[in-house]
Amino acid sequence: MSRISGEFAVIERYLAPLAGDAAGAFSLKNDAAVLSLEPGARLVTTVDCMIAGRHFLPDDPADTVARKLLRVSLSDLAAMGARPSAYLLSASWPADTEETWLAAFCEGLAADQARYGVTLMGGDTTATPGPLTLSLTAFGSLDGSGVLDRSSLKPGDDLYLSGALGDAHLGLRVLRGEIDGLSTGARDELVRRYRCPDPRVDLGRALLERGLATAAIDVSDGLAQDLGHLLNGSGLGAVVRMADLPVSDAAEEALRKTGETRAGLLSGGGDYELLFGAAADRRDALTALAEELSVPLTRLGEARREPGLSVQDAAGREVRLESAGWTHF
Amino acid sequence: MSRISGEFAVIERYLAPLAGDAAGAFSLKNDAAVLSLEPGARLVTTVDCMIAGRHFLPDDPADTVARKLLRVSLSDLAAMGARPSAYLLSASWPADTEETWLAAFCEGLAADQARYGVTLMGGDTTATPGPLTLSLTAFGSLDGSGVLDRSSLKPGDDLYLSGALGDAHLGLRVLRGEIDGLSTGARDELVRRYRCPDPRVDLGRALLERGLATAAIDVSDGLAQDLGHLLNGSGLGAVVRMADLPVSDAAEEALRKTGETRAGLLSGGGDYELLFGAAADRRDALTALAEELSVPLTRLGEARREPGLSVQDAAGREVRLESAGWTHF
Repeated sequence: MSRISGEFAVIERYLAPLAGDAAGAFSLKNDAAVLSLEPGARLVTTVDCMIAGRHFLPDDPADTVARKLLRVSLSDLAAMGARPSAYLLSASWPADTEETWLAAFCEGLAADQARYGVTLMGGDTTATPGPLTLSLTAFGSLDGSGVLDRSSLKPGDDLYLSGALGDAHLGLRVLRGEIDGLSTGARDELVRRYRCPDPRVDLGRALLERGLATAAIDVSDGLAQDLGHLLNGSGLGAVVRMADLPVSDAAEEALRKTGETRAGLLSGGGDYELLFGAAADRRDALTALAEELSVPLTRLGEARREPGLSVQDAAGREVRLESAGWTHF
Repeated sequence: MSRISGEFAVIERYLAPLAGDAAGAFSLKNDAAVLSLEPGARLVTTVDCMIAGRHFLPDDPADTVARKLLRVSLSDLAAMGARPSAYLLSASWPADTEETWLAAFCEGLAADQARYGVTLMGGDTTATPGPLTLSLTAFGSLDGSGVLDRSSLKPGDDLYLSGALGDAHLGLRVLRGEIDGLSTGARDELVRRYRCPDPRVDLGRALLERGLATAAIDVSDGLAQDLGHLLNGSGLGAVVRMADLPVSDAAEEALRKTGETRAGLLSGGGDYELLFGAAADRRDALTALAEELSVPLTRLGEARREPGLSVQDAAGREVRLESAGWTHF
């Protein structure tokens, strides 16, 4: 097994094919990339960093590390309602990185480039004495004048979550050996959700373009914490009903094994689902949209003027949360 | 002395002021940033990564680390002829980072934001068990249809370099204690050039907008290596005359102390000067531009069809180069 060596050889062999002949990428041989936008469009951009051992496990497969890196940023674009187009990669490789690992990493990027319609436009590669550190800058575009943001939630808005809650964090715990005795199906599903989230790109765009959401955020640090950002941004509070949380069959199985309650799912990060507010008169449209996109959309509470987050059990009693969520410090 | 803690506290206290009330930055409280472009403009973007101990010294002052980080990317924009506008910061801090260090780092960014007319638009912060790792994505714009690139050098083009050659690498060696006995003035100048390069933003824009250069690159890895990129990109060779290299008084003093020849300066990285080609009928215009911008421009050779780089001494004899330049692997 050979180790990667030669900054320019790595770029030419593995990274330049990801740029292909895209206009403005200069086959990755220039100092910077040129991005063109349709007339009237605005550019949306975000950067996310992932470090081995912190944001992914050192033995996660290389292709899923690549896909997670890209998808985490695409999820940020989705939360704004943007259409993804391109990305830059800044990679700091430990000296013992195997060339086979790098090849698989780039295969993961290639697969997701095709899936999401994005292209590598440039980047920087360097060696590091520390852990593998990956930083990806994603680009998307907004056609009209609007944008989904975190500050426009209205009192009385329904609160929706796409997909299911808590799978990713349970998948991490499975990989750490903290949850035993799961069926193969449940185990695989939770691990898949941890390693390879599904950024809700089509959902975000539809919510913006059809005027269905008032405000949105992607749930990266846990529902409680990210809902907190949405509420703080809008100066509101909310009620969330524990019984209405969307919990997958795999997660239900894991909770049965651990004996834990659903409350813990509120602080599990890494799902990259969209959390958004919508006026009550949008319920039928959202039901139709969920069916159109084959993305579950679950109404789990409402925004209200009274500050703070109230999580209620089936009897309407307040549930205490032990931890607000993840922080990356 | 307190250590930094709390991802969101750091963002709110130190980073959000760098975004101010810039439209599209959402006070750094959103998932992504929105960049607007003038009609017809194209966006230019580049990312550069710097790691403590590799791209800067662990005891370099925090404000110069910040400025170098920003300026290295601005230099990439300059090499394309773009006007800088904004940036994203992805920072991975070791747990023992002092808050005073972070404050000084952000002061450096603030000073250079004012100097270069750029604004922080977003980013990501995280903790790392490895060395301080900083990745900055810079944005600029191009108004017309042209761009400076590396592939348009023509046979017979004059080759020009801005500023002086080799100061930065000599400054690094001074800081490493490898060059003793310099005057304070020479030492300070070389160290300043290592810690805080001068990206040639106005020069790059003028070269593009006035049609003065055929191709350009910024010299980050040493003149020999970066000239090699320019020549490879254009399928040409070049002659460079050692006697015509622009060498500062401080560098001359350092060479006298070490007993080294100018040849070593060709492989010293970190100067971030612009190297460009220009047709011979642009000489007068370039002389005038150098005066207008107060940026020295030195003609140090010519491009030619015959492949390879020939470095010649004052008698026209070939000089052998020991090392082609830096590589970040």
